[in-house]
Amino acid sequence: MSFNLKQADAVKISLAIRSGELSAQEVCTRTLDKINQQNPTLNCFTTILSEQAIAQAKTLEQAIAKGQDPGPLTGVPFAVKNLFDIAGITTLAGSKINQENPPASQDSTAIKRLKQAGAILIGALNMDEYAYGFVTENSHYGATPNPHDLSRISGGSSGGSAASVAAGLVSFTLGTDTNGSIRVPASLCGVFGFKPTYGRLSRAGVALFSSSLDHIGPFGKSVRDIATIYDILQGEDECDPVCTKRSPELSLPQLETGIKDVKIAVLGGYFAEAWEPEVLEVVAQIATALNVTQQITIPEAHRAKAAAYLITACEGSNLHLANLRSRPQDFDPATRDRFLAGALIPATWYNQAQRFRRWYQQQVREIFRQVDILLAPTTPCVAPKIGQEKMNIEGVELLVRPNLGVYTQPLSFVGLPVLSVPVKRSGQLPLGVQIIAAPYNEALILRVAKCLEAQGIIGVGEFP
Amino acid sequence: MSFNLKQADAVKISLAIRSGELSAQEVCTRTLDKINQQNPTLNCFTTILSEQAIAQAKTLEQAIAKGQDPGPLTGVPFAVKNLFDIAGITTLAGSKINQENPPASQDSTAIKRLKQAGAILIGALNMDEYAYGFVTENSHYGATPNPHDLSRISGGSSGGSAASVAAGLVSFTLGTDTNGSIRVPASLCGVFGFKPTYGRLSRAGVALFSSSLDHIGPFGKSVRDIATIYDILQGEDECDPVCTKRSPELSLPQLETGIKDVKIAVLGGYFAEAWEPEVLEVVAQIATALNVTQQITIPEAHRAKAAAYLITACEGSNLHLANLRSRPQDFDPATRDRFLAGALIPATWYNQAQRFRRWYQQQVREIFRQVDILLAPTTPCVAPKIGQEKMNIEGVELLVRPNLGVYTQPLSFVGLPVLSVPVKRSGQLPLGVQIIAAPYNEALILRVAKCLEAQGIIGVGEFP
Repeated sequence: MSFNLKQADAVKISLAIRSGELSAQEVCTRTLDKINQQNPTLNCFTTILSEQAIAQAKTLEQAIAKGQDPGPLTGVPFAVKNLFDIAGITTLAGSKINQENPPASQDSTAIKRLKQAGAILIGALNMDEYAYGFVTENSHYGATPNPHDLSRISGGSSGGSAASVAAGLVSFTLGTDTNGSIRVPASLCGVFGFKPTYGRLSRAGVALFSSSLDHIGPFGKSVRDIATIYDILQGEDECDPVCTKRSPELSLPQLETGIKDVKIAVLGGYFAEAWEPEVLEVVAQIATALNVTQQITIPEAHRAKAAAYLITACEGSNLHLANLRSRPQDFDPATRDRFLAGALIPATWYNQAQRFRRWYQQQVREIFRQVDILLAPTTPCVAPKIGQEKMNIEGVELLVRPNLGVYTQPLSFVGLPVLSVPVKRSGQLPLGVQIIAAPYNEALILRVAKCLEAQGIIGVGEFP
Repeated sequence: MSFNLKQADAVKISLAIRSGELSAQEVCTRTLDKINQQNPTLNCFTTILSEQAIAQAKTLEQAIAKGQDPGPLTGVPFAVKNLFDIAGITTLAGSKINQENPPASQDSTAIKRLKQAGAILIGALNMDEYAYGFVTENSHYGATPNPHDLSRISGGSSGGSAASVAAGLVSFTLGTDTNGSIRVPASLCGVFGFKPTYGRLSRAGVALFSSSLDHIGPFGKSVRDIATIYDILQGEDECDPVCTKRSPELSLPQLETGIKDVKIAVLGGYFAEAWEPEVLEVVAQIATALNVTQQITIPEAHRAKAAAYLITACEGSNLHLANLRSRPQDFDPATRDRFLAGALIPATWYNQAQRFRRWYQQQVREIFRQVDILLAPTTPCVAPKIGQEKMNIEGVELLVRPNLGVYTQPLSFVGLPVLSVPVKRSGQLPLGVQIIAAPYNEALILRVAKCLEAQGIIGVGEFP
């Protein structure tokens, strides 16, 4: 077979299957072989669904043989962070405690919609326990190393979701993002990671972490893949009270209409204080490609980060309170200690943070009266080493883990849609840039990304 | 003058003014005279707006002389709880601290809408400090005694709003209700008190107490007044992000279409545990008049009360945190001590209460699949004595003040629309019954109330 499955994006695989160039079963088997061979090293998958994936591939093949078109993702294998419900499988959410839960009775809404579009669910992916982390160094299931340098982390909490795409095991995956858990690993692994507007994609059947901040979204290799998957996932879901809006379908040609009248600015101030100069260099590179010179500052972004931390700790700890009381020893120590601290925060701090949030949302809304798109770094550094706790920045020791989301938290805090795009950096470790829009303006983000992709500045580049 | 201003409802006063039977100035002057004469005893008003009220009456008279119709409340004097912004006046919210605030720059939305309908704002009314109480025994501005027995309380926190209508000083007023602050004083003073669905009426320009629970609403003497005022107040307001819905206008004939197909039930369980037998007797009296035999129980209503308490203490204390820290001695002691306790509650309790709330809301929603209207007592007893702290119920000592809202809290907790109707009880102290519907079903409540009023079972009765 000459078809390069590792390099191909989902749309390409699906087109090849639907045109008869490839068979769904063959793609499925080759994918499973690759996972079985590489997962002992890459530690992306916590569950591999060989039998049901092959069965689904057979069904799809029969449909194609009958002349049917099963959908835009026909035969494309994908995997999900192990906090998405998969019918018949216990949803781990990265924990040991949840192993005792019964299997999920049905697939989460997102998985259902992707299967309806012809995609084949092939497994569940490693993550930080209960999504509380930026590192995917899970004390129960191990660390997921970065495919670009196995001594480094993949980022988290959706580390398995980013690494499995970066390693070419699958063309796309799903993850979740509360404070940066899609965007941080996307940046560190060099893939696209998309966090649409809060409430845009259904969270039904997804284990929550911090309800007022949780989002789901896709990882992928190309802008057209991200757009296609997003479009399949979007739209109201009566099983998710937060997800009530449907926008017009995106068409791929629509993404290529250019960005002539789009007002773009680079975020300054807080977002221009990087640990490593190369972080600002990649933003400058993107800004130059887009002819952007304007800089804009969001006031009080550092407080937004603090408030997001606080709300996360409060909401997160509350969900696990009973277990924190009765069996703290069964948590990942890193998760447990932060949850315990969160359980002690006074309600007045939480309410203060929520009230600040409404004020900050108003400031951000004002900014989007002046511009359409904002640019910012995704992470303050390239992937740190596995186990690395601190970085020394000009003589100051900084904790790595809690700060990987420094640029992502103040944006998800008010639910803005953000795509982290992988900037091409030959021979260097990956770094992402965030393309940010006003709520519900996902289409514009994808148009800007498409324009950058066409210029060859962003993309997954060479596979490791 | 033979026109009985004390007995007349707002619609009657307005019709008399618009027909030329009465002059707006005369109504205004007589109202001011009565207030100036009786307020030293009744202590309802904290501000009397003589000059601007007379000026507005003159303007209205000129409009009528030109053949214009200024609206359905033309020339009707009204007053508001002193937490509604009145342009040019400092909004006290029952506090001493707020005396230092500058005057409000504009009227609250509710006042604006009533003025546009021709009503004349005549003053601001006494309340518990920062609306935190069921008694209106304010340490800064004194207690507002019950017009039916001056040794007893009017209830609170909208005590001045209920008492001024019960005493015949004005035909209608506005109050707010977080846990029962409209319904409790309406019951104890023997007037109608309406708390529409959460989010139905704009709170713009109203001092908040506990944002996720606060409502505004009218007090009045007749169902048609309540319906008229509600209709003027309802509808979206861009200054209040919670108030986004407008429903069709109510017409008074629509309220008289009967209740033939309306399914009504009495609330049992928690809502049938009264302190005094007469409380259940008035509910039974209403049920009999409506041919209701069905009883329904809302599960976990006692937890709903506890959760409402907790959320109120958390949200309320947060709003006043800076002053609680710097000048606790300037608060009413009753308010201060509960706020201080509220400031110490862990966020995890608050989040637990909010999560329980969503569950409870779902239970209540299920109940409204079976019935349209629920009936319950408004208060567990008639008005207690001023200063009374405890009641002895079958050998058990109970705290009066925190328990006056025992029946109101579990309903406002999930934002249900409720009208407290005064049951006619000749020679006895007033008691109210709550008529409750599913969210946004205010019209049905008013139809049921209209039917009871037509039977002569409810109403303000003789004035004290």
